[in-house]
Amino acid sequence: MALGEFDLIARYFTRPVHRAALGVGDDCALLRPTPGMQLAVSTDLLVEGRHFLSTVAPERLGHKALAVNLSDLAACGAAPLAFTLTLSMPRVDEAFLAGFAQGLFALADAHGIELVGGDTTAGPLTVGITVFGEVPAGEALRRDGARPGDRLWVSHPVGGGLGDARLALEAFRGRVDLAGEDFTTVRRAMELPTPRVALGLALRGLASAAIDLSDGLLGDLGHVRRRSGAAAGLPGPLGVRLHADALPCSPALARQDRALRLECSLAGGDDYELLIAAPPAHDAALRAAAATAGCALTPIGELTDDGALQVLDAAGRPVDTPWAAFDHFRA
Amino acid sequence: MALGEFDLIARYFTRPVHRAALGVGDDCALLRPTPGMQLAVSTDLLVEGRHFLSTVAPERLGHKALAVNLSDLAACGAAPLAFTLTLSMPRVDEAFLAGFAQGLFALADAHGIELVGGDTTAGPLTVGITVFGEVPAGEALRRDGARPGDRLWVSHPVGGGLGDARLALEAFRGRVDLAGEDFTTVRRAMELPTPRVALGLALRGLASAAIDLSDGLLGDLGHVRRRSGAAAGLPGPLGVRLHADALPCSPALARQDRALRLECSLAGGDDYELLIAAPPAHDAALRAAAATAGCALTPIGELTDDGALQVLDAAGRPVDTPWAAFDHFRA
Repeated sequence: MALGEFDLIARYFTRPVHRAALGVGDDCALLRPTPGMQLAVSTDLLVEGRHFLSTVAPERLGHKALAVNLSDLAACGAAPLAFTLTLSMPRVDEAFLAGFAQGLFALADAHGIELVGGDTTAGPLTVGITVFGEVPAGEALRRDGARPGDRLWVSHPVGGGLGDARLALEAFRGRVDLAGEDFTTVRRAMELPTPRVALGLALRGLASAAIDLSDGLLGDLGHVRRRSGAAAGLPGPLGVRLHADALPCSPALARQDRALRLECSLAGGDDYELLIAAPPAHDAALRAAAATAGCALTPIGELTDDGALQVLDAAGRPVDTPWAAFDHFRA
Repeated sequence: MALGEFDLIARYFTRPVHRAALGVGDDCALLRPTPGMQLAVSTDLLVEGRHFLSTVAPERLGHKALAVNLSDLAACGAAPLAFTLTLSMPRVDEAFLAGFAQGLFALADAHGIELVGGDTTAGPLTVGITVFGEVPAGEALRRDGARPGDRLWVSHPVGGGLGDARLALEAFRGRVDLAGEDFTTVRRAMELPTPRVALGLALRGLASAAIDLSDGLLGDLGHVRRRSGAAAGLPGPLGVRLHADALPCSPALARQDRALRLECSLAGGDDYELLIAAPPAHDAALRAAAATAGCALTPIGELTDDGALQVLDAAGRPVDTPWAAFDHFRA
């Protein structure tokens, strides 16, 4: 039986709310902000063929659409609260919707957050989520707080690293051949990213700046360098000494040649890990925070006041980095 | 010169924020909720060919994308605060972006609200906005507060009415021929709707229920009937006596034959006026509220406890209403 738009919304996306004052089904949802907290808001749009492949399972797409938004909250040190969803689909496909809702709500439930509103329509397959979180006034992690002398860290799975999502994409594109188990592992990294929400909360008061890695390490690092340089009153971006051979790397990516490994790690995109700047005095506290949050943190460089980006190998020699930052209109 | 994604965001969509603690350019925006207020949230997605025609001027598209979201805040009686934007476009077209931003920010400035975040990407042309407003706890207008005995009202332009947007669509489709001036007028209604924000604020404490008219009067009335019936403990929806010949109508629509006039007024869609239920004791206060808000309010029916929808002509005879509610997957 074909379901109409309103039936469809009711069937898959209307669930009772507990934290919100009013959920799906009215003109607006009503949230109850906690006194003294600021509301953190982020929005991401996923377009088929651009942010996900048509081969992705609906469950994984539902997970990923919310995960990339939660990753933005994590990068601000905000506690997740609620989200809205816009879904444009060529047709009403119940199997797709059921799977999508399952993946979406499994991740939402894991973080205790509620779907409070949305809009569904016919059109090309796109998924838009706006996510809301709370953070005490003045405690949000920002991109502009890094200072010369800070150490640069990156989060990653214990035993894993950056770049797996990009390696999976290159396997789908036919540029690399991966053994079955490696392909399964990196495909999972691409389709089921883990937002570092617990880590983000633990970094409040420790990190001087944070950003989530969505467009590739070098590109996202550029945002921190430019904004922090300006906030510090420097004439240009902060400088960075980045140790390319210190970048954490999964066994699957470690089996690739060095050029591809560096490209995936430094310019891969879709990692959804946190890039963090913090004073060296916080080294031990950062490691403890990561352990509590169930992930790893690896130091990968230092911030400087000389404005230069230096990507160095283990012997301190410059590494060639010919890749531009990820650009959705050029990729 | 072709602009990259980040340059483009910075050029057209980064403006300083005053009410928000942090605007565009970080992982999250940070809003400062006012103590004692609830946060009203609504989201709408506009897809080319479905919610707007490719012939629309970019300025008007920018206006409309925000207007339809502000209309949801109006229907809740919420004061607009901020919004986020997702924009998917086939290519970076500076003329389009400049016009779109102009129309968008002109309306935003008129309501004193700020763009606090967003996401742009390559893809089919879609515009997604999530809007935030504030309303004192317990004072939001909802769909479920209508009661038997309430009068039903609809807002409209002074000297105008419902259904013009639908009439414009039928002219674009070639179903009706309109004289030049009529076409200009109804096209403007379709492309430049006026969200009834001031009216919504003035209706707090007066209206027992409100909804904005986006999918056609009969369809949106159905939401109020069902939700209010359930909230009132009735076994089914509220009943309604709707006076078809009382529906306000523009001169352009009045020149059409009666069948088309009724279809456009009762099932047209895209009106972005408010449908309101209120006790008759509030008649005078409602008229005063409309006068203050610079629009008109016309009584169009009464709510009953008999569960039936009766659409009646001026002589009290039933009017045939063969149109289904607007459904984005069927239209």
